[in-house]
Amino acid sequence: MTVDAALAWVNDRHDDLLARFSELLRIPSVSTDPAYAADVQRCADWLVGDLQRIGFANCQAIATSGHPVVYGEWLKAGSAAPTILVYAHYDVQPVEPLELWKNPPFEPVLRDGKLYARGSIDDKCGAFANLIAFEALLATTGTLPVNIKVIFEGEEETGSPSMEPFVREYQALLAADLMLICDGGSLPDQPLMFYTARGIIGAEVKVTGPSHDLHSGLVGGAVQNPIHVVGNIIAALHDETGRIQIPGFYADVQTPSATEQALMDAQEQDFFAMLKNESGRESFWANELGSLVARTTALPTCDVNGIWGGYQGAGTKTIIPAEAGFKVTMRLVANQDPQAVLESFCQFVQGFTSSTAEVHVTKGQTSYPVNLLYDGPVIDALQAAFEATWGKPAMLYRQGGSVPIMGMFQRELGIDLATLGFGTGDNGHAPNEYLLVDAFFRGVATAIHFYTRMGQQ
Amino acid sequence: MTVDAALAWVNDRHDDLLARFSELLRIPSVSTDPAYAADVQRCADWLVGDLQRIGFANCQAIATSGHPVVYGEWLKAGSAAPTILVYAHYDVQPVEPLELWKNPPFEPVLRDGKLYARGSIDDKCGAFANLIAFEALLATTGTLPVNIKVIFEGEEETGSPSMEPFVREYQALLAADLMLICDGGSLPDQPLMFYTARGIIGAEVKVTGPSHDLHSGLVGGAVQNPIHVVGNIIAALHDETGRIQIPGFYADVQTPSATEQALMDAQEQDFFAMLKNESGRESFWANELGSLVARTTALPTCDVNGIWGGYQGAGTKTIIPAEAGFKVTMRLVANQDPQAVLESFCQFVQGFTSSTAEVHVTKGQTSYPVNLLYDGPVIDALQAAFEATWGKPAMLYRQGGSVPIMGMFQRELGIDLATLGFGTGDNGHAPNEYLLVDAFFRGVATAIHFYTRMGQQ
Repeated sequence: MTVDAALAWVNDRHDDLLARFSELLRIPSVSTDPAYAADVQRCADWLVGDLQRIGFANCQAIATSGHPVVYGEWLKAGSAAPTILVYAHYDVQPVEPLELWKNPPFEPVLRDGKLYARGSIDDKCGAFANLIAFEALLATTGTLPVNIKVIFEGEEETGSPSMEPFVREYQALLAADLMLICDGGSLPDQPLMFYTARGIIGAEVKVTGPSHDLHSGLVGGAVQNPIHVVGNIIAALHDETGRIQIPGFYADVQTPSATEQALMDAQEQDFFAMLKNESGRESFWANELGSLVARTTALPTCDVNGIWGGYQGAGTKTIIPAEAGFKVTMRLVANQDPQAVLESFCQFVQGFTSSTAEVHVTKGQTSYPVNLLYDGPVIDALQAAFEATWGKPAMLYRQGGSVPIMGMFQRELGIDLATLGFGTGDNGHAPNEYLLVDAFFRGVATAIHFYTRMGQQ
Repeated sequence: MTVDAALAWVNDRHDDLLARFSELLRIPSVSTDPAYAADVQRCADWLVGDLQRIGFANCQAIATSGHPVVYGEWLKAGSAAPTILVYAHYDVQPVEPLELWKNPPFEPVLRDGKLYARGSIDDKCGAFANLIAFEALLATTGTLPVNIKVIFEGEEETGSPSMEPFVREYQALLAADLMLICDGGSLPDQPLMFYTARGIIGAEVKVTGPSHDLHSGLVGGAVQNPIHVVGNIIAALHDETGRIQIPGFYADVQTPSATEQALMDAQEQDFFAMLKNESGRESFWANELGSLVARTTALPTCDVNGIWGGYQGAGTKTIIPAEAGFKVTMRLVANQDPQAVLESFCQFVQGFTSSTAEVHVTKGQTSYPVNLLYDGPVIDALQAAFEATWGKPAMLYRQGGSVPIMGMFQRELGIDLATLGFGTGDNGHAPNEYLLVDAFFRGVATAIHFYTRMGQQ
């Protein structure tokens, strides 16, 4: 009864709710670029305001050394009910290349049941779906079935640099029985629940050669070209099979259990379909290292995400540039240690320093790989909620991406983690990011079912 | 007497002449960037006007399929006197990175005897030094000792795409006994005369992978990263000794004669000093391939001049980009065939196409390496002119750079070539390009001596 009234409340208000969601999507909360700092703050303030509006207490945008964390709580369910700490992030990726977007990325457009906007699936949907679920339950029953604390992060896309000190400072405030990570999504016709996530480390490498850009006709053949050194380093990162060549890189990689391996094998065709759909390709790389599922979720990776050097304008410029460089990130799996792997990477690339060129490395983000709840009463409640809304349980899977906060929360708060993702759609981190609206509201219903069941346990 | 009066005329007018030269340097005639096309035309018109002012006939900016060629002639020396076709170029390289310039590149500044401006040594000095020499001789003697035709090119920095059809169309107009190439320079205390120049070929390579930028967490490990393919290609261009790995690349490389080798060996220390001064480095690359002189003038090179791909902004963006690419040029020596080498390069890089990524090559400029006059009466007249002005003959040397027009002129007009360079200074093709003013006027005096001696032969 509780559930039905709340679900009806949501169903009666789709257009209004999407209009309010669009307000949130219009705020360009790009966390990596300092030029957007005021917009990130504005986005946090908007969320604080909405939490207050629906009846949460102690709502605030808590300042950190970086972007603020949005906090709010509803603790009137009593001490017999569990307390769930709900996490999502409200910051978004940069939008470049802007010219590939069909609509401006911060002007949401609804087209064929898809809501196009930066942040629509990653991860403003995670924050907003919970706001709808809470408001629907409060509006129809005057209460929530469980105690809720929410934290919406503003730095997920930059590796969460301020979250570890934040969690240490507010350890008491964040105490809970379960942390629900709302970052991720499902397939249009199949709910998904990830139970591992890869860690991530990043670095920026710069190679310096001559004191300034030089005429290639005058010095070509004698002055080493920093771009060539960059090419040598990048080529050396992998062997021909795609295996990463950083010494000791695979030493601590956990081998999946036989049960897990069977689950992964059963998902191989789905992963092929997803990868083909995502990339527009039918052939994939590094086949000798393992299945597609293994390579994208259970094995670590190393990808150069950006490269630069010399002249990039129209026509030609016959120079040997003074410097060149690249940005790299690596996805790690249990039980790789991010600090140790990053140190090993630094030593590896610094080995390319010679008397004719220097290699400089700036360490970037680090986050641990994590293992979440895989079975037990919380997973049972989630699966029952999915059965009720999608007609089938979620597929448990390993996730290739990273949610930096998770491993840190596990270590700092000693808390169990589970996931519930609302971002069903496509083009996360790319132009024309979109959310499937039907799946989004199905996710809202799943959340209503889940919180209600958790209150009954 | 003729010479002395002309030299005195120049000496009395240094400041005025530099002021007029600065007018020319203020015009941003960047030929490679279409945004500057009107400025290139304005620069040509300025030169036509100055040729008319000093008394040349038939002055015009001749339209081509690209930028115009400035032409002017003075043919009153009679049929007994030789006709010299004087070449320089008035276009300049781009100015990026702009933030490294101490003064705006098109606002000339005289500081410590150095005139700082883009084009000051490469190669507006070549055009303007001749204008001064002609005006001085005409003003003081009412005549020139030889017949003169000038052509000032506007596309040298982009590989002279319009010059071959231009020369074919105007073959009769350009008929002469000698072509004097005024592009290059001397050391501050040692005149230089190059007798070979390397050819050049260029190409742009693009590697395409997924249909759009993808989330590296979602597809990393399965979708090949185009930046990695770019790294593989660049790393494969050279072996560890610096030897270029394009099949057949060295097949037609001419070995210098014993006489030339001795001349080259005698210049090794000077080249080391020049390279150290240019690059700020004391160690050089590819030592196993030959001496510094050989590597920078008698051996071919392959340099990546620019590279791009993925995210280059602040912070991190965890993508596998849809594409990445680079610009490359190769310096060629006699008797390499530019078309054949470029074709071989294209096949080499296209060999990196696979089922997971495609390599696309766009061919760029091609120009032949050339051999100029090395001895005989023209060289004797030039050396006598240098003796009279610098107190010593020019050092004959091989030049590492390229003057695309030379090989083509040799082939199309069947004409002898010699060089006289006015660009003594530093930072050609780089920020803070500057001309040494004393050396420039010493060069003007050399030209006055040379033209006078050629009229006496």
